[in-house]
Amino acid sequence: MARIAILGGTGPEGVGLAMRLAQLGEPVVIGSRQASRAAEAAAKIAAAVPSARVSGGTNEVVVPDADYVVLGFPFAGLAPFLAEHAAALAGKIVIDIINPLVMRRGVFSVPQFPEGSAGELAQQMAPQARVVSAFKTLSAEHLQELHEPLTGDVILCGEDETAKQEVAQLVRRIPNLRPLDAGAMINSRAIEAITAMLLNLNRRYKAVTSIQILGID
Amino acid sequence: MARIAILGGTGPEGVGLAMRLAQLGEPVVIGSRQASRAAEAAAKIAAAVPSARVSGGTNEVVVPDADYVVLGFPFAGLAPFLAEHAAALAGKIVIDIINPLVMRRGVFSVPQFPEGSAGELAQQMAPQARVVSAFKTLSAEHLQELHEPLTGDVILCGEDETAKQEVAQLVRRIPNLRPLDAGAMINSRAIEAITAMLLNLNRRYKAVTSIQILGID
Repeated sequence: MARIAILGGTGPEGVGLAMRLAQLGEPVVIGSRQASRAAEAAAKIAAAVPSARVSGGTNEVVVPDADYVVLGFPFAGLAPFLAEHAAALAGKIVIDIINPLVMRRGVFSVPQFPEGSAGELAQQMAPQARVVSAFKTLSAEHLQELHEPLTGDVILCGEDETAKQEVAQLVRRIPNLRPLDAGAMINSRAIEAITAMLLNLNRRYKAVTSIQILGID
Repeated sequence: MARIAILGGTGPEGVGLAMRLAQLGEPVVIGSRQASRAAEAAAKIAAAVPSARVSGGTNEVVVPDADYVVLGFPFAGLAPFLAEHAAALAGKIVIDIINPLVMRRGVFSVPQFPEGSAGELAQQMAPQARVVSAFKTLSAEHLQELHEPLTGDVILCGEDETAKQEVAQLVRRIPNLRPLDAGAMINSRAIEAITAMLLNLNRRYKAVTSIQILGID
């Protein structure tokens, strides 16, 4: 039984993933900079998943006890968070679900910055953490529609093979999802760019899209 | 009946796409810097597709007569080609199938450069051309396996709506392929990054992958 802390678990993606993980019976702890916001999100998850074992607390409180730490806050918060908390993540499996996005004239894209992707930035700033990028291309909307199975593949990447295998096991327990390991963390650039493209497709086709890889049995 | 010139139609992706278009009954002209190489590629296509109407010539010769010009050479050739030939592309539908790729220690990724993607570079250097990025994520291997239907979606992007609709019509005529319009040309960054990721998945899973978008009927 893994203790999963979801930081930024107050946003739509974090809340959605917390609900899906709570459905698996995993103890989930929502982390936020403000304890009150974490408690509110925990209450929302408990209301949606009656069997949930969920609580909330400040990031400082929830990180030390967690086996898995999900980074689910907006990209703007990533570097400041890691500057303060990298040491607390040492040795832990850190699941990065962050999508850096910019929107200009109605079009989503990924910003260009030296590290190349949120996943690479996280691993560079927290070198002792076992960072795995995952869940980035799942829509927050779909994650929160608990009566519907999720669709699409969860593409993983990162430098720690064992950590990726553990995250893959967790993904496999969520009905209908298939984990696929794209390899090194640099693939996070592609995965984050896919999210921007899916959001553009969503707008154009008035749809909620996900992606599936064909050709792997 | 559109006259399609495929420049760099001597490489695996260009040859494969030329074969698939020749199968549709479209007259296909292979362009190369050397007429002899273009003729060789044309002969290869004629051998694979007995009904093909295919010929070859230098880029200078084949571009002026073409309705569609496919840019299928390696990324390194794109800027030099456009520096010389941008004017000849004015008003034409230019289909960019180029994937800028780098490989380091066995891992594919996309290079970072100011324009952001091959598609954006092409549109910027040939502002009068009607550039549509397409076919980037289809494997050269699959394209050349003519006895097998292709799999996956063809994601289009570009600034010219009518040009995209025409290319979408062409894609629809190839059995089993679905065109999807992601919108503005900046989406080319995502599409090119997807190709790098698919190549990494191919290596890891010893597979030949493609992608499909779920959620659009």
